[in-house]
Amino acid sequence: MKINLNADLGESFGPYVIGNDEALLGVVGAANIACGFHGGDPVVIARAIARARETGASIGAHPGHADLQGFGRRAMTLSEGELRHSVLYQVSAVAGMARALGHPLTHVKPHGAMNNQACADRAMADTIARAVAEADPDLILLAPALSELAAAGEAAGLRVALEVFADRTYEADGSLTPRARPGSVLHGRDEALGHVKRMIEASGIVTREGETLKTPFHSICVHGDGAEALDTARALREALASWGHAPVTLPESLAG
Amino acid sequence: MKINLNADLGESFGPYVIGNDEALLGVVGAANIACGFHGGDPVVIARAIARARETGASIGAHPGHADLQGFGRRAMTLSEGELRHSVLYQVSAVAGMARALGHPLTHVKPHGAMNNQACADRAMADTIARAVAEADPDLILLAPALSELAAAGEAAGLRVALEVFADRTYEADGSLTPRARPGSVLHGRDEALGHVKRMIEASGIVTREGETLKTPFHSICVHGDGAEALDTARALREALASWGHAPVTLPESLAG
Amino acid sequence: MKINLNADLGESFGPYVIGNDEALLGVVGAANIACGFHGGDPVVIARAIARARETGASIGAHPGHADLQGFGRRAMTLSEGELRHSVLYQVSAVAGMARALGHPLTHVKPHGAMNNQACADRAMADTIARAVAEADPDLILLAPALSELAAAGEAAGLRVALEVFADRTYEADGSLTPRARPGSVLHGRDEALGHVKRMIEASGIVTREGETLKTPFHSICVHGDGAEALDTARALREALASWGHAPVTLPESLAG
Amino acid sequence: MKINLNADLGESFGPYVIGNDEALLGVVGAANIACGFHGGDPVVIARAIARARETGASIGAHPGHADLQGFGRRAMTLSEGELRHSVLYQVSAVAGMARALGHPLTHVKPHGAMNNQACADRAMADTIARAVAEADPDLILLAPALSELAAAGEAAGLRVALEVFADRTYEADGSLTPRARPGSVLHGRDEALGHVKRMIEASGIVTREGETLKTPFHSICVHGDGAEALDTARALREALASWGHAPVTLPESLAG
Repeated sequence: MKINLNADLGESFGPYVIGNDEALLGVVGAANIACGFHGGDPVVIARAIARARETGASIGAHPGHADLQGFGRRAMTLSEGELRHSVLYQVSAVAGMARALGHPLTHVKPHGAMNNQACADRAMADTIARAVAEADPDLILLAPALSELAAAGEAAGLRVALEVFADRTYEADGSLTPRARPGSVLHGRDEALGHVKRMIEASGIVTREGETLKTPFHSICVHGDGAEALDTARALREALASWGHAPVTLPESLAG
Repeated sequence: MKINLNADLGESFGPYVIGNDEALLGVVGAANIACGFHGGDPVVIARAIARARETGASIGAHPGHADLQGFGRRAMTLSEGELRHSVLYQVSAVAGMARALGHPLTHVKPHGAMNNQACADRAMADTIARAVAEADPDLILLAPALSELAAAGEAAGLRVALEVFADRTYEADGSLTPRARPGSVLHGRDEALGHVKRMIEASGIVTREGETLKTPFHSICVHGDGAEALDTARALREALASWGHAPVTLPESLAG
Repeated sequence: MKINLNADLGESFGPYVIGNDEALLGVVGAANIACGFHGGDPVVIARAIARARETGASIGAHPGHADLQGFGRRAMTLSEGELRHSVLYQVSAVAGMARALGHPLTHVKPHGAMNNQACADRAMADTIARAVAEADPDLILLAPALSELAAAGEAAGLRVALEVFADRTYEADGSLTPRARPGSVLHGRDEALGHVKRMIEASGIVTREGETLKTPFHSICVHGDGAEALDTARALREALASWGHAPVTLPESLAG
Repeated sequence: MKINLNADLGESFGPYVIGNDEALLGVVGAANIACGFHGGDPVVIARAIARARETGASIGAHPGHADLQGFGRRAMTLSEGELRHSVLYQVSAVAGMARALGHPLTHVKPHGAMNNQACADRAMADTIARAVAEADPDLILLAPALSELAAAGEAAGLRVALEVFADRTYEADGSLTPRARPGSVLHGRDEALGHVKRMIEASGIVTREGETLKTPFHSICVHGDGAEALDTARALREALASWGHAPVTLPESLAG
């Protein structure tokens, strides 16, 4: 079994630095690159693409709401046309840059509030999935397992890669425990590794209550902000290898 | 002889409306579409592409400085990397949308201060031309006749379409008379038509002093803001036809 | 009885023009001036203040969400600190400019989605009202009659001016009929004048169903986008005068 | 003799962190707070004001060009009206917040390209100085010694505090050596302390060539990005004290 690790990258902006793109790209097999609406600017995006090309990580566009001040984490209500064209614009911008820089895009993963809203709202999810297909029907949609977004991707005829989170707990319906709740975020590498191991063994999402929701998954989302997160990501990569799961790119995680 | 008419379009933003895209697209054979940095947003861009597709006008990306407040008319100094990736991002965004919406991009024309700076500064011009070639070497660069930008386009291996302005006077060196100078802008359709006729007959730019600077040109830039400008554009289209110059798209203006 | 007319102004941005500030300022007694987050820029704001000073209209800050692309009409979820400081920043910017330009601010009215959300959400309303009091406890809060925002203004110790809308219908609970519903917007001057007359005679809001919700009101909100809206605003001003309601500024509408 | 230390603060934006405001405020006597155009947002500004209030540092508005992507470091050409109202807006926003938060503004210092341009261009300098006086004639203008900006401040009737840089070398005309030139930036605490000591002993700016340009100065600009810069700032504060210069706020540096 092949499991991909993915992380958000390229979210710095002008002189503002977020995350540690260089270190993370030494760990993950897939990078979700911000597109300039919630973070990222043309220079930052180009640099992220160039580094992913060096490490061999596959890359995806990571479109978000046009909300730089809130880093795309503020829920916003857009009309269908606004959302469709926002996604199409953002994916096109990064896809074109990636092609020009010799490392073509292979997937799309929505960011922050756009992602959260689409996981629960099928109409939004459909609009996003169709916009991705419109941009390029060969793109993979990277979506949380058991989400409306994943279902919308299938309905739009896209290949869908399903992800789980290494450091977040799950509710009984398969949704993430809201961050506001105590215990929603797992701290330290041991907790995260234990959580991932349980999900691999159970072949599904293991909820806070200990129940299993059966679902395949192809990728695990990790973070790179802070030394601890990076440490956990590295430990997870090693643990997966030791459990027999070679590190792969996102397209490879879907291939047979 | 075939002469194209081109105009800037798609510069509205959210609820802010600039120009009359629908009327202008009934007149011109090529539309330069703003890319979201100095004007334009994803919905506005999509609408402009869709309308150009209906009228058959060829379309170009119209990248500008990231200066919405100043509408891209404020001269800015960018590093080579900033300018290169700004152009690559903007062209990619509109090119991808155009492809998805079934009416592919055929040219690029820089906007406002970016264009003015590149007409006089060969290093900037080279950076822009190379970024266009990097995005897609088949794109035409639409540049003012006799400008550094036109020379840079040739050097970058691009096809270059040369433009003149229907309503602006020229200095002895072929540059536009600065707007601040009295008489720099021609008013009314008769002045503009007379100016264009003189340039066609002289096979070159006719300066304020009445001298001719020999140069081919493939396209005439017109404006659509205000009833008078639109009226002049329509009259010019008719006059060109009556002088034997059929209205063509930008690629057609370069073809034999 | 004195009734004020208020309208939103100063929402143009750079070269983007919205509304007809000059004409509207010949009609209304109070202007709500955009603060640069959803519309408006420093030059536009200064121009609106200077014109209001000439006509004698009282002025208010009109803070909105940081959403230029959506013109502040997209509902957004902000933390208490984000909302408080957003309002404080925006009110301070326009208040300082108004003082420097010799026509001090007398009120605040939130814009678009920020206003709509605060009319129904008491916690948001409290945060906004307290931020206004923090900026200057002598400012009047202009809020829809019967709204949570009006209640929050009272609780924060502010003077509250209550407004009704000339061209919108009301639901049984005193909220505006959502724009999506047919019949929510009244068209033409006769409908608007009839609606206002009924509310004045009934001393309250008259709902779609014809019921009266008793409430005082001090101001009527009118619009200036388009010839018809301006025409309605002018007709309303004349009708109010003919019914014995002299046109007044917002502070005058609260004075005895 | 009293010498103030000043530093730029409050330049973070949303989730983007720049500098170490908390540590710097333990060192300097005056903080220049970004106003939201080149950096800073309402929450960041409020936090910087609150911290300065705790440490007793005096605060100033630090207006910059509307260029978040370039962090206000890109030279831009604005009309007189644009520049005047941009400064007035930004100073008003931060002044109002500072008043509301109980720690009123005492100075203004332009940022980045706006500052550099105004140091050499008297017309720009006059526009900025007059806008500051318009906002509040009691504000101090903090300007580089021997600059056009300092002269413009005097002409506008403002109190002017003159600053020198601890870690930058000077040309024969008193301007800073451009950053592009080797040796323009002094590295390490010893070089910076030596440079400051020479200027204090010489009662003026000491150029790269070792010549002295006599001028009073009231404040020394230090930086806080990176451990070394912070270390230098701390060492400079101690050295100044040991040389008999007690740490003071900016207004105190001007008081007899």
